[in-house]
Amino acid sequence: MASSSSLTLSSQAILSRSTIPRHGSSSSQQLSTSSIIPSFSGLKTTSSSASSVSRRRSSAVTRLTVRSSAAVETLEKTTDVELVDKSVNTIRFLAIDAVEKANSGHPGLPMGCAPMGHVLYDEVMRYNPKNPYWFNRDRFVLSAGHGCMLQYALLHLAGYDAVKEEDLLQFRQWGSKTPGHPENFETPGVEVTTGPLGQGIANAVGLALAEKHLAARYNKPDSEVVDHYTYVILGDGCQMEGISNEVASLAGHWGLGKLIAFYDDNHISIDGDTEIAFTENVDLRFEALGWHVIWVKNGNNGYDEIRAAIKEAKSVTDKPTLIKVTTTIGFGSPNKANSYSVHGSALGAKEVEATRKNLGWPYEPFHVPEDVKKHWSRHVPEGASLEAEWNAKFAEYEKKYPEEAAELKSIITGELPAGWEKALPTYTPETPADATRNLSQTNLNALAKVLPGLIGGSADLASSNMTLLKLFGDFQKATPEERNVRFGVREHGMGAICNGIALHSPGFIPYCATFFVFTDYMRAAMRISALSEAGVIYVMTHDSIGLGEDGPTHQPIEHLASFRAMPNILMLRPADGNETAGAYKVAVVNRKRPSVLALSRQKLPNLAGTSIEGVEKGGYTISDNSSGNKPDVILIGTGSELEIAAKAADELRKEGKAVRVVSFVAWELFEEQSDEYKESVLPAAVTARVSIEAASTFGWHKIVGSKGKAIGIDKFGASAPAGKIYQEYGITVEAVIAAAKEVSS
Amino acid sequence: MASSSSLTLSSQAILSRSTIPRHGSSSSQQLSTSSIIPSFSGLKTTSSSASSVSRRRSSAVTRLTVRSSAAVETLEKTTDVELVDKSVNTIRFLAIDAVEKANSGHPGLPMGCAPMGHVLYDEVMRYNPKNPYWFNRDRFVLSAGHGCMLQYALLHLAGYDAVKEEDLLQFRQWGSKTPGHPENFETPGVEVTTGPLGQGIANAVGLALAEKHLAARYNKPDSEVVDHYTYVILGDGCQMEGISNEVASLAGHWGLGKLIAFYDDNHISIDGDTEIAFTENVDLRFEALGWHVIWVKNGNNGYDEIRAAIKEAKSVTDKPTLIKVTTTIGFGSPNKANSYSVHGSALGAKEVEATRKNLGWPYEPFHVPEDVKKHWSRHVPEGASLEAEWNAKFAEYEKKYPEEAAELKSIITGELPAGWEKALPTYTPETPADATRNLSQTNLNALAKVLPGLIGGSADLASSNMTLLKLFGDFQKATPEERNVRFGVREHGMGAICNGIALHSPGFIPYCATFFVFTDYMRAAMRISALSEAGVIYVMTHDSIGLGEDGPTHQPIEHLASFRAMPNILMLRPADGNETAGAYKVAVVNRKRPSVLALSRQKLPNLAGTSIEGVEKGGYTISDNSSGNKPDVILIGTGSELEIAAKAADELRKEGKAVRVVSFVAWELFEEQSDEYKESVLPAAVTARVSIEAASTFGWHKIVGSKGKAIGIDKFGASAPAGKIYQEYGITVEAVIAAAKEVSS
Repeated sequence: MASSSSLTLSSQAILSRSTIPRHGSSSSQQLSTSSIIPSFSGLKTTSSSASSVSRRRSSAVTRLTVRSSAAVETLEKTTDVELVDKSVNTIRFLAIDAVEKANSGHPGLPMGCAPMGHVLYDEVMRYNPKNPYWFNRDRFVLSAGHGCMLQYALLHLAGYDAVKEEDLLQFRQWGSKTPGHPENFETPGVEVTTGPLGQGIANAVGLALAEKHLAARYNKPDSEVVDHYTYVILGDGCQMEGISNEVASLAGHWGLGKLIAFYDDNHISIDGDTEIAFTENVDLRFEALGWHVIWVKNGNNGYDEIRAAIKEAKSVTDKPTLIKVTTTIGFGSPNKANSYSVHGSALGAKEVEATRKNLGWPYEPFHVPEDVKKHWSRHVPEGASLEAEWNAKFAEYEKKYPEEAAELKSIITGELPAGWEKALPTYTPETPADATRNLSQTNLNALAKVLPGLIGGSADLASSNMTLLKLFGDFQKATPEERNVRFGVREHGMGAICNGIALHSPGFIPYCATFFVFTDYMRAAMRISALSEAGVIYVMTHDSIGLGEDGPTHQPIEHLASFRAMPNILMLRPADGNETAGAYKVAVVNRKRPSVLALSRQKLPNLAGTSIEGVEKGGYTISDNSSGNKPDVILIGTGSELEIAAKAADELRKEGKAVRVVSFVAWELFEEQSDEYKESVLPAAVTARVSIEAASTFGWHKIVGSKGKAIGIDKFGASAPAGKIYQEYGITVEAVIAAAKEVSS
Repeated sequence: MASSSSLTLSSQAILSRSTIPRHGSSSSQQLSTSSIIPSFSGLKTTSSSASSVSRRRSSAVTRLTVRSSAAVETLEKTTDVELVDKSVNTIRFLAIDAVEKANSGHPGLPMGCAPMGHVLYDEVMRYNPKNPYWFNRDRFVLSAGHGCMLQYALLHLAGYDAVKEEDLLQFRQWGSKTPGHPENFETPGVEVTTGPLGQGIANAVGLALAEKHLAARYNKPDSEVVDHYTYVILGDGCQMEGISNEVASLAGHWGLGKLIAFYDDNHISIDGDTEIAFTENVDLRFEALGWHVIWVKNGNNGYDEIRAAIKEAKSVTDKPTLIKVTTTIGFGSPNKANSYSVHGSALGAKEVEATRKNLGWPYEPFHVPEDVKKHWSRHVPEGASLEAEWNAKFAEYEKKYPEEAAELKSIITGELPAGWEKALPTYTPETPADATRNLSQTNLNALAKVLPGLIGGSADLASSNMTLLKLFGDFQKATPEERNVRFGVREHGMGAICNGIALHSPGFIPYCATFFVFTDYMRAAMRISALSEAGVIYVMTHDSIGLGEDGPTHQPIEHLASFRAMPNILMLRPADGNETAGAYKVAVVNRKRPSVLALSRQKLPNLAGTSIEGVEKGGYTISDNSSGNKPDVILIGTGSELEIAAKAADELRKEGKAVRVVSFVAWELFEEQSDEYKESVLPAAVTARVSIEAASTFGWHKIVGSKGKAIGIDKFGASAPAGKIYQEYGITVEAVIAAAKEVSS
């Protein structure tokens, strides 16, 4: 009876904690540790109270695990609750031990979320551990990425090759597959890169969008080849970030029924109780956003509640579901549970010991008990059959629907259709002048015909960014097979959703658009594109003071420099039609790094000498009247200012100068060329160089050298007609001529 | 009767439009123009149906304007509804005419929001047109900044000197006081700079926070010297942005009762009907966030409803209020109202003419009818008396509470207390090593004692960023007099709220903190700090790979470069105690440009030669064994790498080299020094230069020159202990020595 009285007390404690009003006047003092959390040290009378809690519930759980719906396929396989408990504690201790060994990391979340993690990976999710890239797998995203040991422990138990015991031992060490936050490019089995809060839930919306889109586009009444779920765990931190509200609003709008989000409601963030900064009613907010909301009051060991919630979530097919799971951060730690101290530091040897005692865990660090190991071992063969079954299904599909199968296959594999690049338009100087944003639209529409994975849209600026695909309608709740995505004014969410789409399948080529200056709103997502090798195409129009009257809030200045400084992202600023086509060629080919296209609002002439091939080299000569690689002066421009450089060259040549004009459309690509090529464009001996760009000169001195001159704008813009600003800011042919004479004299 | 039948039809149309479910399955097709908007061309039978609508309501309005509460002080002054209607149409046509003349701009919002604008500026708000900076004025923020002609028209009518008729004629032209979006630094009377959506509502939360804080800190039972409201108009675009949810959550949490937000619910954004991307239930979301929500169903001419809503909002003192005002974008335009085409383009001469006819407006462009002019003319004398009354009140207060008055005065005027800088700590090389984030905390706490306007906090990382002011408690709903602000994990909102605080009163010195890498989340707000001359201090810790195990998602690489490229912002990276104190001195002194402090997680030694004065110059020599300004080599470092440069210098000097070590703590400040000073630090003749910084080398070539070498990191970081990453990435003493030998050989 001792253990059952302990249970009662614990349950009451959990209950009282769960019912604290989130949106009231209760002060943080009322939420002190002693009054609310299950006080394992004070209340328990045996050393295994936590596991006894679950044992008491085994009959109930057994009842619930009877298969009553196809929605949760594998529930019936788990009947031994003691074993579940042991598995959950294995997850907890793998996390505890790894963080302890690294003396760095976040044990609190894995300890609290181990039950939902177990249910997901052991009972619910469909995946193949030996092929983490199997197309029709369920996707899992740990949006609260700091808790990555939860996912590593689960991948380890499930039999993924990337996370063997030696990898757990190397947690957070140089060269390991178990870095401090989940990184898809390091760890097969990790879908996306998380850690910066809110990104993961946004990626998950992108993954779920991708599934819904492909299912609508390719499934047939007799063959559902696309059919998987997206699961995500997010915490209080993710909930507070604005990006999560943006994407949750979209997920509700789109009715992403196969998106199931677990909100780890543990009331603790780094600065302490969430009462100090987060008292909104999250449930109600998600209802307002069009989600189905379920509350699991006992996330610490209420396996049956978790299972029932997932079942309910799957039964709601027209809305995404938020399962609020109330947990205790650091569950099991007698002295640190439910406090910020367990969030982001190792427990310490003493507390680890106390936690082992408290949870009745007699094992060595990193030990996986044999019965747990055996229990999980079924996932390797089961995963193999799942994939084999799907392969057979797809083979059938392919026979019946060869065209659709070929298209879907190219999305699954990422192999670009042969000859796709022939769709790119080319131009001559005789082609009428046009804005590169318009030329961009021509390219997008040409590519959409030949690239089945091209999908995207704008943050409420489709008609300004010129991003509508004319062949297709809008991706909406009722028309998910369409390819124009309407993101609303949600730049940050847009970028992160596109990361999710890109990482869903290698053949997806998501693009998204806004004014270039508003990359400031989405920079965190763009950096993750670069880091996580998501080949998103960022179509960024209105790329300079050339946008005119909207003024300095809308005029980018430092943005080109800021992306040139960012690793693994291509910053392209095409000057005309051929260069815009070249920029798209580069962007499409680079599937493992994102591309940013800076495009003009204003019309630009098609220049002699520009080419797709030139763009591929990053920097190249468009005109030259010198000989022997010895021009008197080199004029270097990008985008809308290449025309100014070309005009200045014409004038200087009239005066007898030998002038080379170089387009420097993509610095990163030029940097990758051979020394010989670089010397052929920018010979070291020619120090008379002038660059012109309607943007910050920051960084240009590397190109123009100590003796060259960089013409640009090192202050904010102004509200006036574009031509007037160009004049007043000295971005003119005259300025280039004067500078050229100065540096070459 | 013709006009009354027209009224009935219009009203029904408005009504049917208002009751369209925002969160339902209605497709955008159902919302076609013809079925929903008041179709002025089709339905009206006289040419002045719109004004007749209001006339019909005059009796009801008169009843409602009887003064029944002190909350809306000036309601009783407006009894002539016809005049109100005329005033409202004056506002509409000033906007129409200015956009038409500029052939650029956004007429739709001013036409729809003119009624709420009129009620606010003519009936509700307390301000002094001849002193736009009067401390106790009500603040107004147009978060939907593209509709700036609304505000310019109102400022014009109210008698502000910045917006005379000639300024309206110069709308969006070079050098005008009426730029394309509201800019506080151009137009006295404009409080903050808006345009980038969502920023304004966030600024408004900051303004309201500032008022609540000062009121709690300085008001006495016998003298409320701080007592004003913050009004804001935001649109669908602002609502979609994540930042607005972040700050609305905080405003609800803090119970900012004197914040009253008007949501211009017009169902139209640039891409068309908001049904395509925005179907959430906004009212319910705001209720979930702890706001009081009111719906004004007829914002087009329901003046009485608007007035009643404001009155109700003022009566709710413990919650901010959202007044959802359903309007018709471009109200009055027969063919363009309620469509995206009226959002961001001039109506065109023909439609202007049609609108004049439709609204019964016989006047020339830019004409303000005499009766309207006369009606508004009272605001100049009234404003003068409001300020005079307040001045008298403050004089009384000053007599009774001289200490508080002196403090409040310094916040109002921005005059820093004499000798404040003596509070800054200094250090010697003997002082034990410490992380600059810890040294930052010492500075913050020292400054909090002497700077009454210092207030701020962290985005849920107070204990990592080391930003808690030990003398003070938390700014919370019940303790608004305290100075530690808990922003939660809401970086973007945090930055923009700080902009609002900074621009509330010149003596406010807001600071805010997160990890340096997460400036990516708040960059749009930081850019507006820079543009709007808000001297926010950004305390950005964990500033490099030196943070170690958290890995590349948390390790800034390109961030230093990205801020060095941004205009009007100081990017400071102090190396030790003296430099951290110097960084704070610079940050406090620079009230018209923000400062970003990049601070280390890891301990750094106090170096010989560092100084506060050195930091003020941006770049300076900390050690040198050369003579005649001719060192063999110059080693340049910042922050945590200055130590590496100093150590390398020691080694090189042992080998007989003449080595200068330069700290390059703030590039922008160095750039501002005299040529002589620059030459004394970086003599042109010495081309053997090596820089070292654990960050992107982008931009460094300007400093090290074509023959120098920049050591840095041009890829993403890694998850491992910090020392290991420094070694593996070559950020070492050995690398500096090798480079120094290479460039000086």
